Amino acid sequence: MNIWFTENQSDSLRLSLKVKNILYSSKTPYQNLMIVETEQYGKALILDNIIQTTEYDEFFYHEMITHVPLFTHPDPKKILIIGGGDGGAVREILKHDTVEKVTLVDIDEEVIKTSKLFLPTIGCCLNDPKVEVICTDGIEFIKGKKKYYDIIIVDSTDPVGPAIGLFNKEFYNNTYDALKDDGILTVQSESPIINTNVTVDIYKTIKNIYPVTYLYTGIVPTYQGGLWCFTLGSKHYDPLQTTVNNIGFITKYFTPEIFKACFSLPSFIKNMLEGD
Amino acid sequence: MNIWFTENQSDSLRLSLKVKNILYSSKTPYQNLMIVETEQYGKALILDNIIQTTEYDEFFYHEMITHVPLFTHPDPKKILIIGGGDGGAVREILKHDTVEKVTLVDIDEEVIKTSKLFLPTIGCCLNDPKVEVICTDGIEFIKGKKKYYDIIIVDSTDPVGPAIGLFNKEFYNNTYDALKDDGILTVQSESPIINTNVTVDIYKTIKNIYPVTYLYTGIVPTYQGGLWCFTLGSKHYDPLQTTVNNIGFITKYFTPEIFKACFSLPSFIKNMLEGD
Repeated sequence: MNIWFTENQSDSLRLSLKVKNILYSSKTPYQNLMIVETEQYGKALILDNIIQTTEYDEFFYHEMITHVPLFTHPDPKKILIIGGGDGGAVREILKHDTVEKVTLVDIDEEVIKTSKLFLPTIGCCLNDPKVEVICTDGIEFIKGKKKYYDIIIVDSTDPVGPAIGLFNKEFYNNTYDALKDDGILTVQSESPIINTNVTVDIYKTIKNIYPVTYLYTGIVPTYQGGLWCFTLGSKHYDPLQTTVNNIGFITKYFTPEIFKACFSLPSFIKNMLEGD
Repeated sequence: MNIWFTENQSDSLRLSLKVKNILYSSKTPYQNLMIVETEQYGKALILDNIIQTTEYDEFFYHEMITHVPLFTHPDPKKILIIGGGDGGAVREILKHDTVEKVTLVDIDEEVIKTSKLFLPTIGCCLNDPKVEVICTDGIEFIKGKKKYYDIIIVDSTDPVGPAIGLFNKEFYNNTYDALKDDGILTVQSESPIINTNVTVDIYKTIKNIYPVTYLYTGIVPTYQGGLWCFTLGSKHYDPLQTTVNNIGFITKYFTPEIFKACFSLPSFIKNMLEGD
């Protein structure tokens, strides 16, 4: 079978994966959703023709968006994820013994249902007793919350469609209010190669709100350019003053050394962040 | 114009770049060579339908294959590059004031000529008085050389076609003999995601010959998976015992912090290297 899924990563860049099978396809109230079995990376969750995650490469992203803030905080108990309906971030967060409750707020119930059904290695923990799943708009959900969470993770799609309100000052201000006095926000921050302006905007907006702000990088093979950014905004703890000696559970990407190394930015990213 | 160049990065993974213009195309004695102007990444050098380098993303690769060994060595003077006919590695090496002579050995004279003509930002230094360009087979060239070079860099194509002999024990033994007693070898070592076995083979073969051996990583957006490996085999100096305080020239990727961070390997790569 010579069938390919092609993602337009930009107007002039495409990534194509050979398809073994189209397992599911639907139009949800918010987006087009597909589960496609690929030869290279296993099953893939695709929203509006953009690869969100694949069985093979999901660990790169999910480990980096969770363990960096959770190891920066000495005692993370209450965690909020906005987006992340596939469940990969939930799975990683539950590896931390300190965690008492994870609230996952994803606007699209179908993503959650589909992930549980078709991507069990990713959606495996969505029924865990510590996990509360709320299907609503994260932008509205966060409004009015006061000093409740230790960690907020914004695990969103790209800044188009339903996710666009997750990329502005009002939303980041609301996350600040919703975090305890020593809370930490982490936001997926796009490709510094293809979406340079988005990466810089997220970083600068968060830096204007949070006293401790860093950009850090990871790898995501199926995302544009392979290099991916995350922004960490912290009200108190500084990851560069934190040492992780022992992880205490199994990971595929994250290590104590990666916890340090991910904050070492290439010159071109440093220059991007320092520009006007 | 809706014309695309597509690279088969594996049997089930493709990368496509929108083409503005095909500037040059020829069949050399060794390979098919194209210079294509792309919208996303500028002009690209393509050999046997594999992207070797592009104007936009070449710095990721060329800075990492050169500055890591050159900063590990306290006084690198005589440098040998095998492959690297585009000239990007030469350009980076000449940024080091200690360097007295760079010998570039590339089997394909047409790569060198074409890069000088079409990729002047990459091939700019191939006529520098410190540079000697020899168009011959690097595998033969290295044989019988004794304790002459401070650094040898293997900047080759993938292990198919003319480059295949650059990936075996006999060749790495010959590099060992050709290096001074404190010399350093660095070899581009493929994608740990797509070509896992090749990465592991290179590392283990070099580790059996050189007393100090490390794998390190960089990013190359146009290469498979975006994450790329390099193997450093050193006869004496240990990069982990080396601190770079000041680079002394302009880079786009490499920094003193990246020099440390690039040796922090993700868990899955550590596991790959430790397996039997």
